[in-house]
Amino acid sequence: MRLRNIKCAKEVIETSPYVILDYEKYMGHFNDLFENNQPLHIEIGTGKGKFIKTLALQNPHINYIGIEKYDSVLLRAIEKIDTDIPNLLFLRMDATDIDHVFNHEIDKIYLNFSDPWPKKRHAHRRLTSDRFLRRYDAIFKEHKVIEFKTDNRHLFEYSLQSLTDYGYHIGELSLDLYADDYEGNISTEYEDKFHSLGMPIYKVSVYKE
Amino acid sequence: MRLRNIKCAKEVIETSPYVILDYEKYMGHFNDLFENNQPLHIEIGTGKGKFIKTLALQNPHINYIGIEKYDSVLLRAIEKIDTDIPNLLFLRMDATDIDHVFNHEIDKIYLNFSDPWPKKRHAHRRLTSDRFLRRYDAIFKEHKVIEFKTDNRHLFEYSLQSLTDYGYHIGELSLDLYADDYEGNISTEYEDKFHSLGMPIYKVSVYKE
Repeated sequence: MRLRNIKCAKEVIETSPYVILDYEKYMGHFNDLFENNQPLHIEIGTGKGKFIKTLALQNPHINYIGIEKYDSVLLRAIEKIDTDIPNLLFLRMDATDIDHVFNHEIDKIYLNFSDPWPKKRHAHRRLTSDRFLRRYDAIFKEHKVIEFKTDNRHLFEYSLQSLTDYGYHIGELSLDLYADDYEGNISTEYEDKFHSLGMPIYKVSVYKE
Repeated sequence: MRLRNIKCAKEVIETSPYVILDYEKYMGHFNDLFENNQPLHIEIGTGKGKFIKTLALQNPHINYIGIEKYDSVLLRAIEKIDTDIPNLLFLRMDATDIDHVFNHEIDKIYLNFSDPWPKKRHAHRRLTSDRFLRRYDAIFKEHKVIEFKTDNRHLFEYSLQSLTDYGYHIGELSLDLYADDYEGNISTEYEDKFHSLGMPIYKVSVYKE
């Protein structure tokens, strides 16, 4: 997701207490930033942040880091925080760098409505490609858990194949999340939009020891 | 699928050249019936037989056996054969017996629009349950290939989980077969009906060494 370039976005982000700027020095011990040893969950492509903010408020005993590529989008996520959320932080970075930022310290990864990269030659850019799954291996602490939602059928088909080929087991699976009246589902901004257009939302949770 | 009991169904079946009656004696060498050594593919729950009959006509170098539980349904399949199809036979039996009928001689299994057995306590009766997958292990020759289609979302979700948990790899996957304009798709009678009602048809091909 990309918004028009917002003036001063960079400045606002750099002064926000919710944004980790000097992240290079926390590799392997990001929990120092939270000053506790709670599980650490990340969302790659956090967009305007509704999803991760809701999660963080619901689960104070888990630390969350939302990762977003674009200043202009991250700005929106930060602006929307109107209450103190001590277990939530954001990182502005490209997901391809993820294994150079974290080191065996993540307990769960959320991927929501990721870029489908529909062309076959761009398949390795999909966040569920084996190239990314290898990167995740380097950042997961022990047990690996990925939760993935999308409205894009082809991306979902690809992801089910890619994830299971990589050795992930399917935990939960829904090919029509809203028809299942999925209890406790936290929607993203994108999800609200696509669901309101009558499109099925696909979801899978996978795990690997 | 069950049709009303048709008078004389049993008699017609027992005199049809397309029905294997004394199947006990062919365990391990069903290809003797075809008098050749072609690959042997079976469809479990063959219904009125449109699918397997079309396959057999298209692929004369593969032998096919359609398995159906009910006399009244199998009768319809036989009645519809209006040309000589030397690579097609039928068996009237319950799928639970399958590993007492075949022995390491099947190359591919087709499951089309199987009974979803929606209640959790009946899950072991689904043709993609691990109880059935174990039975298939005993009848597959070497490489294991299963092709599965259904309109039942919950059965499909269950099956993807069950098949991959059992070690099967996803070959092809479509969560909306007709939207994909799937080349070479052979529809079943059920499929035509459900598709005409606007329901998505799910399909997966899985394989295991």
